[in-house]
Amino acid sequence: MEYIKENDYVIIYTSGKKYCIKVVPEKIFTTKTGVIKLSEIIGKPFGIEVNNNFVLKPTIEDIILFGAIRDTQIIYPKDNFFIVSKLDIQHGFKVFECGTGSGALALTLSRAVAPDGMVFTYEKDEKFVKNSKKNIEKFGDINRVKIHFQDIKDGIDEKDFDAAFLDVKEPWEYLDIVYNILKPSAMLGIIVPTVNQISEVIPAMKSKFCDIEIMELFQRYYKLNPYRMRPEDRMVGHTGYLIFGRKIFINDNK
Amino acid sequence: MEYIKENDYVIIYTSGKKYCIKVVPEKIFTTKTGVIKLSEIIGKPFGIEVNNNFVLKPTIEDIILFGAIRDTQIIYPKDNFFIVSKLDIQHGFKVFECGTGSGALALTLSRAVAPDGMVFTYEKDEKFVKNSKKNIEKFGDINRVKIHFQDIKDGIDEKDFDAAFLDVKEPWEYLDIVYNILKPSAMLGIIVPTVNQISEVIPAMKSKFCDIEIMELFQRYYKLNPYRMRPEDRMVGHTGYLIFGRKIFINDNK
Amino acid sequence: MEYIKENDYVIIYTSGKKYCIKVVPEKIFTTKTGVIKLSEIIGKPFGIEVNNNFVLKPTIEDIILFGAIRDTQIIYPKDNFFIVSKLDIQHGFKVFECGTGSGALALTLSRAVAPDGMVFTYEKDEKFVKNSKKNIEKFGDINRVKIHFQDIKDGIDEKDFDAAFLDVKEPWEYLDIVYNILKPSAMLGIIVPTVNQISEVIPAMKSKFCDIEIMELFQRYYKLNPYRMRPEDRMVGHTGYLIFGRKIFINDNK
Amino acid sequence: MEYIKENDYVIIYTSGKKYCIKVVPEKIFTTKTGVIKLSEIIGKPFGIEVNNNFVLKPTIEDIILFGAIRDTQIIYPKDNFFIVSKLDIQHGFKVFECGTGSGALALTLSRAVAPDGMVFTYEKDEKFVKNSKKNIEKFGDINRVKIHFQDIKDGIDEKDFDAAFLDVKEPWEYLDIVYNILKPSAMLGIIVPTVNQISEVIPAMKSKFCDIEIMELFQRYYKLNPYRMRPEDRMVGHTGYLIFGRKIFINDNK
Repeated sequence: MEYIKENDYVIIYTSGKKYCIKVVPEKIFTTKTGVIKLSEIIGKPFGIEVNNNFVLKPTIEDIILFGAIRDTQIIYPKDNFFIVSKLDIQHGFKVFECGTGSGALALTLSRAVAPDGMVFTYEKDEKFVKNSKKNIEKFGDINRVKIHFQDIKDGIDEKDFDAAFLDVKEPWEYLDIVYNILKPSAMLGIIVPTVNQISEVIPAMKSKFCDIEIMELFQRYYKLNPYRMRPEDRMVGHTGYLIFGRKIFINDNK
Repeated sequence: MEYIKENDYVIIYTSGKKYCIKVVPEKIFTTKTGVIKLSEIIGKPFGIEVNNNFVLKPTIEDIILFGAIRDTQIIYPKDNFFIVSKLDIQHGFKVFECGTGSGALALTLSRAVAPDGMVFTYEKDEKFVKNSKKNIEKFGDINRVKIHFQDIKDGIDEKDFDAAFLDVKEPWEYLDIVYNILKPSAMLGIIVPTVNQISEVIPAMKSKFCDIEIMELFQRYYKLNPYRMRPEDRMVGHTGYLIFGRKIFINDNK
Repeated sequence: MEYIKENDYVIIYTSGKKYCIKVVPEKIFTTKTGVIKLSEIIGKPFGIEVNNNFVLKPTIEDIILFGAIRDTQIIYPKDNFFIVSKLDIQHGFKVFECGTGSGALALTLSRAVAPDGMVFTYEKDEKFVKNSKKNIEKFGDINRVKIHFQDIKDGIDEKDFDAAFLDVKEPWEYLDIVYNILKPSAMLGIIVPTVNQISEVIPAMKSKFCDIEIMELFQRYYKLNPYRMRPEDRMVGHTGYLIFGRKIFINDNK
Repeated sequence: MEYIKENDYVIIYTSGKKYCIKVVPEKIFTTKTGVIKLSEIIGKPFGIEVNNNFVLKPTIEDIILFGAIRDTQIIYPKDNFFIVSKLDIQHGFKVFECGTGSGALALTLSRAVAPDGMVFTYEKDEKFVKNSKKNIEKFGDINRVKIHFQDIKDGIDEKDFDAAFLDVKEPWEYLDIVYNILKPSAMLGIIVPTVNQISEVIPAMKSKFCDIEIMELFQRYYKLNPYRMRPEDRMVGHTGYLIFGRKIFINDNK
């Protein structure tokens, strides 16, 4: 059993909605169903109910959706989760990412490589560097993430990566540089919002990567009434296209 | 750089198809584009090309789809990957699963809890127990997975789990027992193939779990021709419905 | 070429939005891009542009979405259009419908059976009878539609229908009565919002109808920017499930 | 009630499968469940059962899927049905189509314009002209369809069309010529299999058509077991993208 401590971030789940708040003793949190005095939940177990509100430990999905400050488009959990496993991330891995954005994927990757791996993430917008650092410090382990404030056109400081991910506007411009810092056979993942970008990145990948796949994921939620089972009326129609490929070993001595 | 060793399992990627084979020195592997003498790839780096075939290190997806012996319906990678992250699995976690099936999810979970967590998986069909053990020994770390040949109606030997997953015909019959071995606030995940099962499990969950969600995931692949961008003609129409909820703490002393 | 006449209903298409208005000479219609004096468009051809607004002749889809007064859930164009063709509606057909709702499907059906067929539609809510009559008078040919204010449990006044459609809460209660008024081999269509209703209607259909199909339709829109081709961010996740079957001839003299 | 006549085309529905056959008296038709002597069904009502086979009147969907000889890619019923209604086709309409292909859409359109409208369809491949003519003669009313063996680059013989549809490789090359033969405010529909084609056709449409929409339709079938409700395992992932727009009236005297 885990207990709520002062200054913990917790999720308040109430009438189908979620809020991520910090347990500051002198504060209260008010929902439709009643008031939670935060001083009174300290020392109580996670999962407790207070006036029809439930106090939960934030999961990675809660952090992405309700906790992290987003100052740019994020990679949604459905895509984020798929990427982490598809890239075959394991503890001890050394993972490359560019750009960092709000840090949501870096956070997920850093948990997947823990306790002995490391994520190196590059971002050329200083505002995003600062915000993502804040998010990871708050909800993750900043010792597992090195954020570079750097355009990777100017080089990548590390090499021999076990996996790489690109979330940039023109991924085709970075394929050579990413190729060079990846181990052979390692996975490269890319996300792009438009089909035109797929059309441009695919020809650029073909000589250096094999097992290329292009896909999109949909997530459809259902209403909770068991006597009237049916999907939600609205759904997300598009987040992004995912592209994956594996580095081919090219013998330069040939 | 990683090098291919004798008796490694490798993926041969050739003309859009994949095969998972063991590198037995005296054998050869023949594809449409030519022959691979396995003795000749030993000591070579993963990612090499031999007669238009590429030799890759198996990822978890490769293992599930091409490596593991499946003697029952598996949870497909799109669902498997989502489940692992949605359950918030981290290194050090103690995870409960029932039933084991071919062991594909146990394998994924065991990699996500490594190097210091543990997966406890229950299976009442002896045939599946044997096969899943074989799959995990071959492709994972059997020290991170304890397979019980046991119907959980007869009890669960461990407790204080960080997360639980049910892939059984009648999950509503096991909710009480699973509730008891989970930490409060922890995630329970369930997969069922039919809507009727959702209708039965939801009422049974409502008093003990909050933040209940029902969903399905779709994966749509695209053809690789950048000048004629379009989805594949056929897609998977259904694998299963995913249900998630979080254990409510109920104070028995009240 | 067709010209706009006084009191015509027209569609104003402006900046991606549509409005259905009546051309009343003394009125003006104001949009973001400017003003349309309705007196000035009379006698002009449909399709003209006035201050970046386009004046269009309403299509059946425009009528359903922007013209008809909806006082209940409507059948969306994607489903409505499929139903009309799937029921194999042709000019001269005699078509049965229950319930009428806002009259959107009756309107579409009546156009498909014109100039020599007829739609008989039953509705037990008087409010809907009045509203649907108004909608059809405004946008269709009321001579092709007979609206009965009647619960079909009390019988159906006509028989020998070429096709039938049910949009009611408990379609399984009406299958016998609908069976009796349909020609053998004719199509019956049903729409229901929930899976539980499908589960109840299917067993009731099986002895009297063959070639039963259950389906749902999705419609995904794309953004118009050709240099950034991608789907709309949001889409409709669910409208209803469609069920179809064909009447089996049962020889009562056997 | 309608009765089966000699030389009618009928659908045999048997164990979930359908066959379209001609009722030639001396022939028999054998299915898994038994034999149908065709001479014995003449004079019987449509909808009768013979040895667990059902004899049905072909609907337009049956004709497209099981009756028409297809010598090229067809427009699937889900798209075909949507197009007919979206183009707002009504009896008496004069409709333009290019190319004819197997004639499936021309057939559907010709039924929708009957008894007093007309479909003019252009096809530059002689083989398709012959085949589509055969299909329409067999299953429709050839008097409602004029098939031109002609490339529309060489002109269109008619004008003042109420609606137009293009199913050609390079629709952007025909927009001007189609614009000229359409009534202002009338609908133009286009189908293309690839996103690259959308990217090319949209800029070409923008000055001459308004209310442009791009979409795709999905159809998901469900299994018939009411106690195990779930979608079919496989579905069609892609047929084509649909584009619609409405002709803007441009005053050439300006």
